[in-house]
Amino acid sequence: MTPGPGLQRTKLPLGFLASGVNCGVRRYRPDFGLLLSDRPMVAVGVFTLNQCQAAPVVYSKSILPSDQVRALITNSGQANAATGTEGVRRNLQLVEAVAGKLNVKADQVVVASTGVIGEQLHLDKLLPSVGDLVSRVQETAESFAVSILTTDLVPKSVSTEVSLSTGTVRITGICKGSGMIHPNMATMLGYLLTDAVVSVSQAETLLKKATDLSFNMISVDGDSSTNDCCFLLANGASGHNLEKHEDLEKFQAALSDVAIFLAQSIAADGEGATKLIEVTVGGADDLKMARRAARGVTLSPLIKAAIHGEDPNWGRILARLGAEQVPAASLQKMNLSIQGVSIFAGGEPIAFDRPMVRSLLRQSKVQIEVDLQSGAHSATAWGCDLSKKYVEINTEYS
Amino acid sequence: MTPGPGLQRTKLPLGFLASGVNCGVRRYRPDFGLLLSDRPMVAVGVFTLNQCQAAPVVYSKSILPSDQVRALITNSGQANAATGTEGVRRNLQLVEAVAGKLNVKADQVVVASTGVIGEQLHLDKLLPSVGDLVSRVQETAESFAVSILTTDLVPKSVSTEVSLSTGTVRITGICKGSGMIHPNMATMLGYLLTDAVVSVSQAETLLKKATDLSFNMISVDGDSSTNDCCFLLANGASGHNLEKHEDLEKFQAALSDVAIFLAQSIAADGEGATKLIEVTVGGADDLKMARRAARGVTLSPLIKAAIHGEDPNWGRILARLGAEQVPAASLQKMNLSIQGVSIFAGGEPIAFDRPMVRSLLRQSKVQIEVDLQSGAHSATAWGCDLSKKYVEINTEYS
Repeated sequence: MTPGPGLQRTKLPLGFLASGVNCGVRRYRPDFGLLLSDRPMVAVGVFTLNQCQAAPVVYSKSILPSDQVRALITNSGQANAATGTEGVRRNLQLVEAVAGKLNVKADQVVVASTGVIGEQLHLDKLLPSVGDLVSRVQETAESFAVSILTTDLVPKSVSTEVSLSTGTVRITGICKGSGMIHPNMATMLGYLLTDAVVSVSQAETLLKKATDLSFNMISVDGDSSTNDCCFLLANGASGHNLEKHEDLEKFQAALSDVAIFLAQSIAADGEGATKLIEVTVGGADDLKMARRAARGVTLSPLIKAAIHGEDPNWGRILARLGAEQVPAASLQKMNLSIQGVSIFAGGEPIAFDRPMVRSLLRQSKVQIEVDLQSGAHSATAWGCDLSKKYVEINTEYS
Repeated sequence: MTPGPGLQRTKLPLGFLASGVNCGVRRYRPDFGLLLSDRPMVAVGVFTLNQCQAAPVVYSKSILPSDQVRALITNSGQANAATGTEGVRRNLQLVEAVAGKLNVKADQVVVASTGVIGEQLHLDKLLPSVGDLVSRVQETAESFAVSILTTDLVPKSVSTEVSLSTGTVRITGICKGSGMIHPNMATMLGYLLTDAVVSVSQAETLLKKATDLSFNMISVDGDSSTNDCCFLLANGASGHNLEKHEDLEKFQAALSDVAIFLAQSIAADGEGATKLIEVTVGGADDLKMARRAARGVTLSPLIKAAIHGEDPNWGRILARLGAEQVPAASLQKMNLSIQGVSIFAGGEPIAFDRPMVRSLLRQSKVQIEVDLQSGAHSATAWGCDLSKKYVEINTEYS
């Protein structure tokens, strides 16, 4: 995904530093990352609703929200989920080692983990690397963005500036996705950093709104992870706050844009994916139903496989909308277009140029637009196609 | 799937006849089938809860339940779904042609269709074949069972006898499955025939109980079809009724066994499937949760792909149970076994012989057993593995 105008890849907001090192859990790639603020910051998170929550999720939930956080660490390769009481103990030992090195308290260090479920953390590899991790911090997000990846093909980060009435603040977003992606409250791992002055309660609302429009609207495979979490970290280093209503609105819009860009990047880089699928369900009389329906279409393996094969098998889209309980009355008057070509209108199939639609489906982004002609609500969801590569990746992982 | 002792493939109950012909919608294979009773019969059905319901579903729902049905027709290759008002008209025209030929009323003929969504029925092919269809009826289910298939590799039928206190009755079940299989109230297409004397209200209860234990517990890909239906047809030709409580119980058990055998056959013959997966969630304090959890595991593409690769990636099972909202308290004390080998006990991972489990996963049936240690409820669901072949089949279908 190429960022739009005004967006940069890896610049961090003022007062932030980041690093990523290889501690040896993975063979060569960085697998241990740190985000550090030069002062205490406001930190809030949204977490997986999965009842099987990883030890780092339980821990981070216990210390957030906070206005005293100094650092966030992430290890990739091991999820530290379904690891019982030993997993909780090892998580804490790791946090204490990092906190000790940084000379801060344990409850000032947030943790997220990603990787294989059910393995105990390799502390023998992680602990000796803490020194390196702290000493190698830099002013770009690059090494951290790489250290959090699992089967992702590309690192995902983006940065933007927001001009507030009092001056300019920066928002930088970093995330990882790839497999077991069907976030419920948050994405696999997402980090939104800013140097704006933000209160804990502002941060909570800002994060909730941004994730509802972005990470909570993507799906790679419908499997919700045990480790999903998304954080907003605001260290106030710019000195500019969001007290004015216009500033808050502007900041919210920019934060949502960053989150949507990252969410699209995750969908486009889903395991085995070759295409990003964007589904909009508009004209709905119920927002919740529109969100469920849009997301349902991105979830259907039949639709995902058809799009992979550039097959305009639109009947599967109708079937999925019906399965998601879009009312029959709306289905009987709806319009459907694929890549802008009208396929179904007023509840009846219409003749369309199949070879042309086939060739439009060769593009790397596929747009499906549904107009239920029943109300004013609209929702957009993102997913990816289903390829043989997805099966290949997931037959050999653990 | 090999039927167990006492089960036969294609024998029909007394008074039933069946046929299947090629009308030309599909190139060579039979694609138009008829089930005929020599007398009026009790007929009840359960239908898809998809809001996008095919014309034949809407029609069959409108004439059932009934105690005057004489015949049931099914065409394969075209689902007659999302075909608007023209689809409704063509469905009726087909029914009237068959009823005319049989010299019965239109509301004595039930219809089911399966195939591509969104195409108008080829009446130019179907109508000229009605004569053949009626004249070729036989006393076995074979040709009908073949005529209803789409991407299924094998026809699916089974027959059993039940010894009631007054004499013996027969139950024969026929079905098709393969893709877009995630029944919600019924399977893709299921037909349960019997020569027992059954009232309409008995038939409704019998069918509901049997489908809840069988077709409603299987999933190939999580996509609920527009055309799912399952019928129970009872013509009373044996003269033996179910008035005695023991007879009703015995009949219910036999009917459920037939339905479970057919449901397993559908899962084992899912598109691209190489293995049948059976998931039992026991020790649950809530039956609904146990059913959702068992079915959830069969739905996970990550688990399906891991089993395809004979990879005992049990963490994905834990993750899915948590995502299906199995309470954290149960997850923290549950046991899990794969192919009878204990993998996780009392909420903690345990060491297991990975190469041995890998080799056990080479078997064509994979059993996953979860004991939540929290209550007395239990549910079993069936699914299949996810292979590259599934992707191949579904990238080129319409």
